[in-house]
Amino acid sequence: MKTYAIGVDIGATKTNFVLLRNWKVVRSKKTFTLKTKGKLIKAVEENIQKLIFGIPKSQILGVGIGVTGPLNEKRNLILNPPNQKYLRLCPLAKIIKNDLSKDFKIKTKMDNDVNCFTSGEALLGAGKQAKSVLGITLGTGVGAGMVINKKLYRGNFGSAGEVGHMVIKFDGPKCACGSSGCFEEYGSGKFFKRKGVDPKALSAEAGRGDKEALKIFREYGSFVGIGLSNAINLFDPEMVVLGGGIANAYSLFIKEAKEEMKKRIISPIARKNVKIKRTKLGGLSTAIGAALLWEK
Amino acid sequence: MKTYAIGVDIGATKTNFVLLRNWKVVRSKKTFTLKTKGKLIKAVEENIQKLIFGIPKSQILGVGIGVTGPLNEKRNLILNPPNQKYLRLCPLAKIIKNDLSKDFKIKTKMDNDVNCFTSGEALLGAGKQAKSVLGITLGTGVGAGMVINKKLYRGNFGSAGEVGHMVIKFDGPKCACGSSGCFEEYGSGKFFKRKGVDPKALSAEAGRGDKEALKIFREYGSFVGIGLSNAINLFDPEMVVLGGGIANAYSLFIKEAKEEMKKRIISPIARKNVKIKRTKLGGLSTAIGAALLWEK
Repeated sequence: MKTYAIGVDIGATKTNFVLLRNWKVVRSKKTFTLKTKGKLIKAVEENIQKLIFGIPKSQILGVGIGVTGPLNEKRNLILNPPNQKYLRLCPLAKIIKNDLSKDFKIKTKMDNDVNCFTSGEALLGAGKQAKSVLGITLGTGVGAGMVINKKLYRGNFGSAGEVGHMVIKFDGPKCACGSSGCFEEYGSGKFFKRKGVDPKALSAEAGRGDKEALKIFREYGSFVGIGLSNAINLFDPEMVVLGGGIANAYSLFIKEAKEEMKKRIISPIARKNVKIKRTKLGGLSTAIGAALLWEK
Repeated sequence: MKTYAIGVDIGATKTNFVLLRNWKVVRSKKTFTLKTKGKLIKAVEENIQKLIFGIPKSQILGVGIGVTGPLNEKRNLILNPPNQKYLRLCPLAKIIKNDLSKDFKIKTKMDNDVNCFTSGEALLGAGKQAKSVLGITLGTGVGAGMVINKKLYRGNFGSAGEVGHMVIKFDGPKCACGSSGCFEEYGSGKFFKRKGVDPKALSAEAGRGDKEALKIFREYGSFVGIGLSNAINLFDPEMVVLGGGIANAYSLFIKEAKEEMKKRIISPIARKNVKIKRTKLGGLSTAIGAALLWEK
């Protein structure tokens, strides 16, 4: 019986690997992403080889790969990742499958990173007990995925969950997507960039009690709350799980986020009961979710 | 075999009745809504009796009732309909069931009107061929419902689809819900009210070619487009069906709505392929959808 699955999370900065056995993590590795297509692919393949060293190949379901979206509809082509131009139109899963198959037969699947993140958290992380989970990543951009009854909800054209591009102020800043006042302008690194600060450095200052830094995070929190309320009013999930780089500063903004969110959720039942959690899988959610692409 | 289902749509102004046989309309009636609880209930019961005159009672699945939301979680209590205060906390379905059951055994179910509207259009109307339908009613308020694979998606706390209370301008007008800048402020009758005009009268003037009236509808259309893009970016349906009183002026605002919407939908595939339609069931969508509460 096939009991192993491999998950790879290829981020702009880091590439993480997990090996699951019976949907439990048995091995993992975190590496830096090499920034040309050739080197990146070679490093990924070598790390997969190391990860499955000594495992009977016949027991491996396959490799799941999480990449920066958007993908094409069939999910076999990376379209145009803004922070990894060298992967534009790359059929990454197919290349890795072909290369590895010189040694042994293996299958690969690919999905966007935030679908993988949400899947990982919904099935094996913070949302394990929840019937429906909205996963939101707060980073360079804002991404989101939706899991309903333990299945990813992809929408009709494969583009559900674009929480980052919901308009929250139609006369707000122009967005690269062509719209204006998108939530991403307020809920991602772009918010900090407009203020000329770096969220990581700012978070360190806030940690030392700097009042201005704390204030900026509180303001950020109230914008996150607006985005949360919008997504909750439409999708009505049992739980929202927050991840992405800026979620490392969770405690600095979550109070204001929840306050603002509660003001704006219309259903009193949802307002009272919806759960907001932070990621639980220690940076491995996306790699784990990628491996879960092999779950039935 | 039970082949008949009764649908009742109790709006603030009109109450409509349909009798379906094998999910086809065989009888229908439109009446005005009587504005006290006692008179309304009596009139509804009498009209149901007339509607099923001569039909073998044993072949009736039940009565479905569409009412102004929100309902409680079990959908047996109307909470606080803003335009029908006399139905506050009314267990309407149960009362009608008990009254009618003095004559013959019958079951009743209840749901909010926009879920019924969406169900009607998705299963038997404009969305008959579509895999997923977002129904939006543009009237005194903005309501919405979602049908995925022919089933209503209600969310975890029964409050999915609150499109009207998505924020589109967080520093916009205060909304009765406690939030501000809700889509409802721009996409419902409230937009026209703030301009001191009545949409019905304005639509007649626009029909006579009045430039100012046409301009107001174009402005309205671009706001509708923003709301559509928000809902589509999150839910990614195959089709959106527009209904409600203001949708009678569909041709006066839909061009601008589509233009604005396309600017703001992020997925090129959804942008190109999502269908926007107007209601097809001639004011009976909600009553038909109420009867469909009895579909398995």
